[in-house]
Amino acid sequence: MPAVLADLSIEARWIVPMTTRGRVLENHTLVVRDGRILDLLPSLDAAERYAATVAMQRPAHLLMPGMINTHTHAAMSLFRGIESPNAPLEQRFVGPEFVRDGVLCAIAEMLSSGITCFADRYYYPDQCARAAGEQGMRAVVGLPVAEAISPWAKSSPDYLTAGLRVRDDYAGHPLISIVFAPHAPNQVSNATFARVATLADELDAGIVIDLHASADEIARSIAAHGVRPIERLWRLGLLTPALNAVHMTHATAADIDLAQRTGIAISLSSSSSLKSEQQLPPVGAFVASGMRLGVGTGGGARQDVWGEMQLLALMISHLRSSDGSDHGAWDALAMATRGGAAVLGLDGDVGTLEAGKWADLCCVDLGGPATQPLIDPVTQLVFGGGRDLVSDVWVAGRQLLSDGELTRLDWPGVAARANAWAMRLKSGG
Amino acid sequence: MPAVLADLSIEARWIVPMTTRGRVLENHTLVVRDGRILDLLPSLDAAERYAATVAMQRPAHLLMPGMINTHTHAAMSLFRGIESPNAPLEQRFVGPEFVRDGVLCAIAEMLSSGITCFADRYYYPDQCARAAGEQGMRAVVGLPVAEAISPWAKSSPDYLTAGLRVRDDYAGHPLISIVFAPHAPNQVSNATFARVATLADELDAGIVIDLHASADEIARSIAAHGVRPIERLWRLGLLTPALNAVHMTHATAADIDLAQRTGIAISLSSSSSLKSEQQLPPVGAFVASGMRLGVGTGGGARQDVWGEMQLLALMISHLRSSDGSDHGAWDALAMATRGGAAVLGLDGDVGTLEAGKWADLCCVDLGGPATQPLIDPVTQLVFGGGRDLVSDVWVAGRQLLSDGELTRLDWPGVAARANAWAMRLKSGG
Repeated sequence: MPAVLADLSIEARWIVPMTTRGRVLENHTLVVRDGRILDLLPSLDAAERYAATVAMQRPAHLLMPGMINTHTHAAMSLFRGIESPNAPLEQRFVGPEFVRDGVLCAIAEMLSSGITCFADRYYYPDQCARAAGEQGMRAVVGLPVAEAISPWAKSSPDYLTAGLRVRDDYAGHPLISIVFAPHAPNQVSNATFARVATLADELDAGIVIDLHASADEIARSIAAHGVRPIERLWRLGLLTPALNAVHMTHATAADIDLAQRTGIAISLSSSSSLKSEQQLPPVGAFVASGMRLGVGTGGGARQDVWGEMQLLALMISHLRSSDGSDHGAWDALAMATRGGAAVLGLDGDVGTLEAGKWADLCCVDLGGPATQPLIDPVTQLVFGGGRDLVSDVWVAGRQLLSDGELTRLDWPGVAARANAWAMRLKSGG
Repeated sequence: MPAVLADLSIEARWIVPMTTRGRVLENHTLVVRDGRILDLLPSLDAAERYAATVAMQRPAHLLMPGMINTHTHAAMSLFRGIESPNAPLEQRFVGPEFVRDGVLCAIAEMLSSGITCFADRYYYPDQCARAAGEQGMRAVVGLPVAEAISPWAKSSPDYLTAGLRVRDDYAGHPLISIVFAPHAPNQVSNATFARVATLADELDAGIVIDLHASADEIARSIAAHGVRPIERLWRLGLLTPALNAVHMTHATAADIDLAQRTGIAISLSSSSSLKSEQQLPPVGAFVASGMRLGVGTGGGARQDVWGEMQLLALMISHLRSSDGSDHGAWDALAMATRGGAAVLGLDGDVGTLEAGKWADLCCVDLGGPATQPLIDPVTQLVFGGGRDLVSDVWVAGRQLLSDGELTRLDWPGVAARANAWAMRLKSGG
C-alpha cells in the first residue's frame, strides 16, 4: 500500500486527545495535513501508512489540544504594573497602535504558555483581529458596545457601526471570528442590549459579557432595574447558548438554575474573582450543572491559564465525576481545552484531537524536576505543570513555538515597542 | 584606597533587599564574602571599593532574598500522581533510600524555582538533613513525633530517641537546623506533647505542627479533649514563639487572638487548604494581627512557592498596609522571604539582603513576555512571575543554580532513581 502524504507527524510519549474522559494514549502519532488533523493512531501503523514532510519525536512530552483563553483584554498587557488602569488613562493612551502593540505582547505570552486561541474584548478590535491573524493565532474578537464615550466610539450606535465594519472585514477568516461584547450590564441600556440580541441572532454571532462579577454590579442592577443582572439579560433576550458569561462570581442557586435552563456558557476567571471580590466563583455548582465552562485570565497581569486551571482543579477535586472517579485535574484540563472551545462555539473546529479538526496543539515537556517522577501524566500536568513546560505550539498546523522559542513573532521588536509605551505611561506623557 | 577583596559581586537591574517596605534599588551591587553579604551599595561605589573574584551582571534581572518554603514533606515527591499516599503504602515503601531520593527530587525542584531554604518533616529526617547538607541547601529538619508505628519509629519514646540522635549529629551545622515535628494534634497524646514542650524549651529548639488543618481535626479534639486543638496545645505549653503552626485553615477570631497573644508563627499553605477543605485560610485577619507569616507547599504535588505567593497576594490585595499603600504583592513577597525566615527563627541569618546575613539569593529574569513591559517590578514579579523566571540561586554564597541549570545536583541521576521508585510504586512491588 503506498504511503499517504502528510505535512507533519508528531510522536509524543503521551497524547491526550480530550475526546474521552481519562483517555491517555501511549505510542501514538498525530498526523496533520493542510492545517487539520488527519489521523491519530498507533505509531507503528502511522509509520506504515503516512509519509510526513516533517516527522517529530517528543519522547518525554505530552501532546494535547492547545489551551483556550476565553476571557482576555489582551491590549491591557501594556498597563501591567499600574494599579488601576482607569478611563482617563485609557482615554489618553489607547489608540490603534497601543492596542496593536499590547495585543502582540499578550500573543507572545499566550503562545509561550501553550494557548492557541483567545477570546478578547477591548477597544480597537480591528487591531486585535489584525495582529492575531498576522501572527497566525486563533482569536474570537469581541466588538465593544457601550453608551459612554471611549477611545473607540462615541455612542452605542457608533460602537455598533464601527464594530460591524470589523465584522465584515473578517467574514470567513479561517482564524478570526467576531462576537458582540457589551460592557458590563450597568454600562449598557435596555435598548442597546435588545439591539445587540437582535443583531447577534440575525448574524449568528456570539455575545460575551461580564456577568455577576461584583456585588456592586448586582446592587446597582436591582436599584435601577428591579432585578439581578442575569434576570435583566434574560428578559432582554440575551440568555441563549450564544452567550459567554464571564466571571459569575456571585451566583445564587436561582442564578445557576436560570443559566443552566437557558444554556449559556461561563468563563471562569478565579484569580480575578478572588482579587476583586475576595471570593471564588461557585465552580462546584457550575460543574454539577453540566454547563459549558471555560477558563479566562482577564486583564493584563497574566495571560497564561495554568494558574487558573490549577485553582479550578483544587476547587473541584473533592467532586466525584459521573463515572465515580475523582479527577479534579481532568475536569480542569477539559475546561482549559475542549470546554473553552465549547464556550466559544468552536467545538466543531478545535478543542480536541480528532480527525478533521484544526491542528491547534500544545506539547508539554514532563521530563523536568517539576513533574518527575511521573506516575499519572494528567494529574501531574495540571498540579505540577506550568507555562515553563510548554515546548511547542501549533495553530492550524503551523508551528508558532518551537522548543520554547517563538518562530514567527518578533519578540525583541515587540518588547522594545512595549517598553516605549511603558516609558510614556510612567512619565505621564 | 586599596580595594577590599570579595568572593562575588552581583549587579542587577533591580535589587529588592526586603528590609524596608517598598524599597527597590537600581544601579546597586551586592557584595559577598565567605558566604555572607558583605555590602549592598551603589554600583559606582562598589566598583571603587571592592575587587571581587567573580563579578556578575544581571541587566534584566531582579535580585532578592532566596525564597523560603516553611512547610514541606519533601520525600513525598516520589508519591506524585498517587491520589492518596496512605500509611500502608508508606509502611511498605518508605525507608532511608526512598527518603533520600525523594528529598533530592524536591531539592532539584526547589532550587530551580528560587527556594534556598525549606522546613521539612517526614520519616528519616537524618536522610533529609544529609541530602540538604550535601547539596548545600539550607533546611530546617523536623523530627517526627507520634504514638503510632511508622517506618521510622515504633512508639513516642522511640521517635524522640531516634530524633535526638539526628539532632546531635547536626549540632552547629551551618545549613541544617533541627526542630520537633509532632504529627497532627489527634495523633499525639497529652503526655508526649508535654514532653516535646519541655525538650524544645531545654534545647532551645523550634516546634512545627499542622494546626486547625481540617474541620475533622477540630471536631475530634473537642470530642476527646473538650477543647479546640489550639487551646489544647496552649494548655500543654506549646504555644510559644518557637511554634510554627501550619495551615490554620479553620481559625476563629478567638483562635487568632490566642495565636497572636502567645506569639506563635503561621505557615500558610493555601492550595492545600483549598483542596482538602474547600476553603482558604483567613489570611486577611492573620495579616491584620501582625503575626509572623510564611508560605509552605506541603506534600509532593508541587514544591515551588510562586503559586502560593500569588494566591496570598490575591487574597490580601484589598487590604491597606500601615502606610496606606495597597500592596498585596509586597506583603506576599515578604511572606515568601523574610516572613518565612521569621517563622523559622532564622531571621537573624537570612530572609533579607543585609550585611552580615548569609548570601541566600534568588535572581529573577524579568525580560520575557510574562513580565514585559515592566513598570512596577515587585507587583509584576509577584503577579506575573513564576519558577521559570528564576535564573540564579545562591545559598551561603555558593551558586547552586546558574542560568537555570543546577550546578551541583546530578539531576539525570536523581531522575533515574526517582523513576525506578515510580516503577516499583506502579507495579506494587
